[in-house]
Amino acid sequence: MAARSDHRVVIVGAGFGGLFAAKFLRRAPVSVTVVDRRNYHLFQPLLYQLATGILSQGEVAPPIRDVLRKHANVTVEMATVTGFDLAGRRVTAIRPDGTERSYGYDSLIVGGGADQSYFGHDEFARFAPGMKTIDDALELRGRIFGAFEMAESEDDPEARRSWLTFVVVGGGATGVELAGQIAELSRSGLAGNFRRIDPKDARVVLVDGGPEILAAFGDRLSQKAARELERLGVTVRTGMVVSGVDAFGVDVTAHDGTRDRIACRTKIWAAGVAASPLAGMLAEASGASCDRSGRIKVLPDCTLPGHPEVFAIGDMMALDDLPGVAEVAMQSGIHAANTVKRRLHGKDPADFTYRDLGSMATVSRFHAVVSFKGIRASGFLGWLMWLVVHLTFLTGFKNRISALLHWAWTFLAGSRAERTITVRQAVGRVALADAGADDLSRSVPAADPGEEDGR
Amino acid sequence: MAARSDHRVVIVGAGFGGLFAAKFLRRAPVSVTVVDRRNYHLFQPLLYQLATGILSQGEVAPPIRDVLRKHANVTVEMATVTGFDLAGRRVTAIRPDGTERSYGYDSLIVGGGADQSYFGHDEFARFAPGMKTIDDALELRGRIFGAFEMAESEDDPEARRSWLTFVVVGGGATGVELAGQIAELSRSGLAGNFRRIDPKDARVVLVDGGPEILAAFGDRLSQKAARELERLGVTVRTGMVVSGVDAFGVDVTAHDGTRDRIACRTKIWAAGVAASPLAGMLAEASGASCDRSGRIKVLPDCTLPGHPEVFAIGDMMALDDLPGVAEVAMQSGIHAANTVKRRLHGKDPADFTYRDLGSMATVSRFHAVVSFKGIRASGFLGWLMWLVVHLTFLTGFKNRISALLHWAWTFLAGSRAERTITVRQAVGRVALADAGADDLSRSVPAADPGEEDGR
Repeated sequence: MAARSDHRVVIVGAGFGGLFAAKFLRRAPVSVTVVDRRNYHLFQPLLYQLATGILSQGEVAPPIRDVLRKHANVTVEMATVTGFDLAGRRVTAIRPDGTERSYGYDSLIVGGGADQSYFGHDEFARFAPGMKTIDDALELRGRIFGAFEMAESEDDPEARRSWLTFVVVGGGATGVELAGQIAELSRSGLAGNFRRIDPKDARVVLVDGGPEILAAFGDRLSQKAARELERLGVTVRTGMVVSGVDAFGVDVTAHDGTRDRIACRTKIWAAGVAASPLAGMLAEASGASCDRSGRIKVLPDCTLPGHPEVFAIGDMMALDDLPGVAEVAMQSGIHAANTVKRRLHGKDPADFTYRDLGSMATVSRFHAVVSFKGIRASGFLGWLMWLVVHLTFLTGFKNRISALLHWAWTFLAGSRAERTITVRQAVGRVALADAGADDLSRSVPAADPGEEDGR
Repeated sequence: MAARSDHRVVIVGAGFGGLFAAKFLRRAPVSVTVVDRRNYHLFQPLLYQLATGILSQGEVAPPIRDVLRKHANVTVEMATVTGFDLAGRRVTAIRPDGTERSYGYDSLIVGGGADQSYFGHDEFARFAPGMKTIDDALELRGRIFGAFEMAESEDDPEARRSWLTFVVVGGGATGVELAGQIAELSRSGLAGNFRRIDPKDARVVLVDGGPEILAAFGDRLSQKAARELERLGVTVRTGMVVSGVDAFGVDVTAHDGTRDRIACRTKIWAAGVAASPLAGMLAEASGASCDRSGRIKVLPDCTLPGHPEVFAIGDMMALDDLPGVAEVAMQSGIHAANTVKRRLHGKDPADFTYRDLGSMATVSRFHAVVSFKGIRASGFLGWLMWLVVHLTFLTGFKNRISALLHWAWTFLAGSRAERTITVRQAVGRVALADAGADDLSRSVPAADPGEEDGR
């Protein structure tokens, strides 16, 4: 066991930022406490594969304490942070049984990540779950596979068509990956499973408010991705803002005011993010301000103004308009940990510089788009790069082997291993129980000028 | 696609009985409809491995329609059966969205299985979940791994000890396997994961009302299993009836009236079963009677008196006092399907004869007890037999490969891959939220003579 020093580092959140910070401090003369409200580290970039039946929970969400088991100077605690006392250098939290607990620190690193944002339309959430947590993904898995179940036992052709229509809102990487996977699932993953419907009849619609999907990848890759999606059978509708969501469909509005309604039972929200409430709590405690997405404005070294011992990292920090991707979280986490270490060694801290290692998104099996230092790859080459990178970063040797096995089945044999619908994540529990029967007849959007500013 | 005949077979329930009946009818000139309220077939004998983090949901619960995808004469519908109209030969059901649906039949095979029974003490259920469904197992997984999380962040030694005490009620195969796995988990599966507790300090107590555990296996194997459990650190308390269960402990009463209380946060109920409510519904519809466990009394050919076209199979049929094991369900399912087939070919139906292929239970890794046609094996030899049989019967090639991989990690490396605690199955949600604070001081059982007849 490494000798512990008196310097106490508290890390709030074990996402990519917090986890990499904790790992970086392995041989530093500090004692580290990682506090997270969940017991798992979520490999967010593969969450869509949990939602579409490819990977299991354990593969995308290894236990935090197991990932850090060889880090003798790290203690992991499962608790939800409730406040920051920056003057007293103490974090307060609540354990799962409701009892309070607090953690004194000398350095504090906060990486609370981001939650789904419905741009002021939180009423959409129950009809169109987001894609941020394991529970979200299991809920979506239940709804996606449940929709095929419902279609199979549905006699009315219109209702059946509605059960077989899937609308994904948001054309970023998560939305594109989800739309592509639902399309592939319907084209090959369910072969032979149904008698009364043909799952290939499923329609997948990808809606985005901007002029193109995967805007961050540039025009050429964006167009290639759109073409590949269309080849899979996904309808890409860009320039369309979602103005309404209910149990039976989605209302969209074009920029010229044209309105349309897509009848569909399954809606997925992959459109917007807002920083974790921890950012607001930190801002209030420190006097720092937050940006429009709720991210806390930090100094160039990721610390809070007036509090060089407090770092905000990853998706919840506002700095140089950096994107909300895993790479930024990892690098800012390492930067914060390194700053703590440098100070202990009497060295000057440096500003955070982000090295853009590129971004990638899988559109379908054997097809990904990759943007890397000016190099732009797509198709099979892009997919191979995706495979190598994700296998490298996937946490733990076991998860790599078992994910590879699941990928082999999915990508080569076209089948899906994880399709359980549990009672707690059961089909239609929310989507249907909440819908008034009178809504059933609704197929044209009601004129409702009050809801135009959705994505 | 096989030619469908006019003879319609409806199979209710896709457990071992229903699934084997459907499979047996593959080349028969009948059209089969399988109706189940869930989308998965549950491999019940391995459910304890889901609860203890070894296997994933998909491995123990493959989708029914995927298992039957090559059976062209089988349609699968996800719906909950609500009634039997035996005169009109029609089964009524409700789909997940609440709409009604019904299925006309010429032959009906009902295999509704069994639910947990608390012997009249249903109030125990929220403190001591059963082990019958995927949701049960996920709830238990959250409670088991959550208890270690709570212990790690607990300062009070008495409370910590209570979080590290696990009581399993019921010394049948499920109870023994669970107790053994929790003990192994604490001894090797969590190595290096904790800083403030030693998971090896966990106490596992197996409580049974009878004179010995695994009574069905005979004295010698029963004693071997008990010795192996004790070696693992499990305390076996036979001859003890559970007279009370609350958030903080279990009250037990010996046959001589001596009482004791075991302070523990995590309780698991693996003690009793009651037939599915479908048995009672069938009995009411047909005029047949049920036994003490709610099982419907069938004729020697598994049909209902006066209804040769209606079969009850598996755990919900009362016949010759057959045990509630997978083998009985499979064989009676095949018998029912075969009877349907023989009649169509003009042959006389025969009575059901059960061939006892033996039983087995794993006590720990590399140690199982096996009773097979008078041969009784235990230890490593028994475990090898367990491995071969379970790999053979595990549904689907993919699940065999991936379960083997997970078993290799667990049994050779001692680690657990599936430990996610979801919000919906979160630690202490029920166990704690419901407990009044005044209960906290309770460590001796209150004199309450009204609750003596628990298991």
